[in-house]
Amino acid sequence: MTFAVNPIGFILTDSAKVPRHWTVSDLEGTLEIDREYTEGLKDIKPGDRIVVIFYFHKSPEFSPELLVQTPPHRNGERIGIFSICSPIRPNPIGMSVFTVLAIEKNRIRVKGVDAYDGTPILDIKPYIIEQ
Amino acid sequence: MTFAVNPIGFILTDSAKVPRHWTVSDLEGTLEIDREYTEGLKDIKPGDRIVVIFYFHKSPEFSPELLVQTPPHRNGERIGIFSICSPIRPNPIGMSVFTVLAIEKNRIRVKGVDAYDGTPILDIKPYIIEQ
Repeated sequence: MTFAVNPIGFILTDSAKVPRHWTVSDLEGTLEIDREYTEGLKDIKPGDRIVVIFYFHKSPEFSPELLVQTPPHRNGERIGIFSICSPIRPNPIGMSVFTVLAIEKNRIRVKGVDAYDGTPILDIKPYIIEQ
Repeated sequence: MTFAVNPIGFILTDSAKVPRHWTVSDLEGTLEIDREYTEGLKDIKPGDRIVVIFYFHKSPEFSPELLVQTPPHRNGERIGIFSICSPIRPNPIGMSVFTVLAIEKNRIRVKGVDAYDGTPILDIKPYIIEQ
């Protein structure tokens, strides 16, 4: 069973280095969304936090020995892939929470970027924590 | 540009009706993960909250008039697709946070289910809120 997903846009950033996780990132960038989806962005406002689902397009292919990995900041601890945020995973899908700085038409300026320039975006969702 | 994703397992639940969102769900279910990935689950423990990325396999195809929708609980308000959790979206990818009740090998018992029985799971991630 295979499903096809298509980018709705791309993450743009000037930085060649990106922080390891959005919780420790002040990096700014732009989400450039395809114009066909602009109307769907109408309720995103500066100050909002948004969940961005993206595709780790630079990740090497996953293989079974990567089911357990040692994240760089975890002192050699070997952790199961489904308990860490490594970009090398069975489906190379990433999820980050960015803060919206500005939005104009199909371009969203955000802070908290932890993805490389050119990363394909699959979805944007509202950031809803338990009520 | 198209990417292929493959289920790592499926969400199982006995309930034919599912709550509209995990934040309002007490429904229990089981995440049955393919055995080839069992080792990657080793650090998931009862009491953990986990982020589950899944594929809305029952959603009709997206079309432009669905860029703005009226969620059932929002009193007729018309909201952009990227600010709501509707399952009918450009890429039918869902994200929920479940609470782990028990785990045995490749089967994770969870609470908070808001997806239909048989929903394909694409990824499981740790639930990390800002530090």
